[in-house]
Amino acid sequence: MAMTAEELEQLRQDVRILKDIEAIKRVKHAYFRCIDMANIEELKSIFHRDVVVHFIGGTYEWTLRGREQYLEAIAANFNREVVAQHNGHHPEIDVLSETEATGTWYLHDNFYRLWDLHFVTGTALYRDRYVKEDGRWQILESRYERVYEIDHVIAAPPPLTVHYLAKHGRARSGPA
Amino acid sequence: MAMTAEELEQLRQDVRILKDIEAIKRVKHAYFRCIDMANIEELKSIFHRDVVVHFIGGTYEWTLRGREQYLEAIAANFNREVVAQHNGHHPEIDVLSETEATGTWYLHDNFYRLWDLHFVTGTALYRDRYVKEDGRWQILESRYERVYEIDHVIAAPPPLTVHYLAKHGRARSGPA
Amino acid sequence: MAMTAEELEQLRQDVRILKDIEAIKRVKHAYFRCIDMANIEELKSIFHRDVVVHFIGGTYEWTLRGREQYLEAIAANFNREVVAQHNGHHPEIDVLSETEATGTWYLHDNFYRLWDLHFVTGTALYRDRYVKEDGRWQILESRYERVYEIDHVIAAPPPLTVHYLAKHGRARSGPA
Repeated sequence: MAMTAEELEQLRQDVRILKDIEAIKRVKHAYFRCIDMANIEELKSIFHRDVVVHFIGGTYEWTLRGREQYLEAIAANFNREVVAQHNGHHPEIDVLSETEATGTWYLHDNFYRLWDLHFVTGTALYRDRYVKEDGRWQILESRYERVYEIDHVIAAPPPLTVHYLAKHGRARSGPA
Repeated sequence: MAMTAEELEQLRQDVRILKDIEAIKRVKHAYFRCIDMANIEELKSIFHRDVVVHFIGGTYEWTLRGREQYLEAIAANFNREVVAQHNGHHPEIDVLSETEATGTWYLHDNFYRLWDLHFVTGTALYRDRYVKEDGRWQILESRYERVYEIDHVIAAPPPLTVHYLAKHGRARSGPA
Repeated sequence: MAMTAEELEQLRQDVRILKDIEAIKRVKHAYFRCIDMANIEELKSIFHRDVVVHFIGGTYEWTLRGREQYLEAIAANFNREVVAQHNGHHPEIDVLSETEATGTWYLHDNFYRLWDLHFVTGTALYRDRYVKEDGRWQILESRYERVYEIDHVIAAPPPLTVHYLAKHGRARSGPA
């Protein structure tokens, strides 16, 4: 039995959505890889120029507008004196149209501040919006709220045997 | 060269399976998000009414039958006096038919019991069965065995700066 | 409006690539499950016979050639006196042809050496190559460099309540 034109069109839509979901996951996957390695150059292609950011932690809050502000905040905070690990789990992506999508992610992060000896760890729920422009899916909005956050004061820096950001991150500026 | 009706049918099957795999991953992703936030309402749509659960830990064992029993166990255990993190990695989903599937997941969990000062962490291997009913994939069976489990007695509660379950979880009942 | 033969062929290509991406993720997912459980038998089907491995840690370096050497290294190192957790996040898979693909993964690992009381934890970036032979995607090359590594000396073994490798791993050989 042959497929009708309607069935074929449905199939094409289904495949487009599956491809979009995979493409959006990759954008967010690259995001996590790039922040933890302070790869500012590659992050430029990941954020929409008008990206809106709102992250509510227990010990901080990020409210940012626009790609330049976001890139600067990452470069400043993922500096030589931190160890950063951000893993995004459990994507729930909804493709709303050929150019719009939303996504939920479950963040787990470990973050060592070597300069004032804090180790912050926890989880959060991201609520993102994505837009396809210039043929690429980009992050248009990114918001999260913590599920839990623990802020450990540590007696000494962790015994690091590899520390990528120490070589590739920016020098830290700000209060000692 | 045109496709034969058989080739087209194969393509349609392939796309259905890809959609089912994505849909099943989402169900499990929502499961992890919902247990750690004690979202009992949303969990109702995730479990089949006759769900069977068997989790074998080092310090506990859960043997449950039916959605109501499972929801009650989650509500009771993911209470105000715990901090819960359950992340499911490495899905291996097999779609067996249009309505049946199996899945393997690699769990990593961190669980703080604030009331008796234990921190339990480890990994486990889930072996799940899923069924599609009423147009939705649901969890029909969920079993796991630990790969490792560590049960730390802690001297003090962790220095929490955010604790979602403290506000949204049920009051703990049971021995002090 | 009907699809042209070219459009149909594109659709078929798209579906093949989506299936390949899912198949490759499963190979790597099985890899992580199998190493942490010393499942050498199943690993045989995951590595290409000529697999090349180069892992650069802070406290070790693995340079291996061929499946037998790789399997032996895993069996020797994932022995009864270690606790192993390797989770691969954020896959970025590029399918290059019907039989070739590359992949980037973000590793998070926890590794306890019970015999000399070290706990090593950190992250790394995998750069893999995959090949499809005999109808199966296999790992042809696997390389990683650490993003960070921390090597803790611990005062005592962790309080394990489950330890799969103690029963299923090989006896440790080598210096005490």
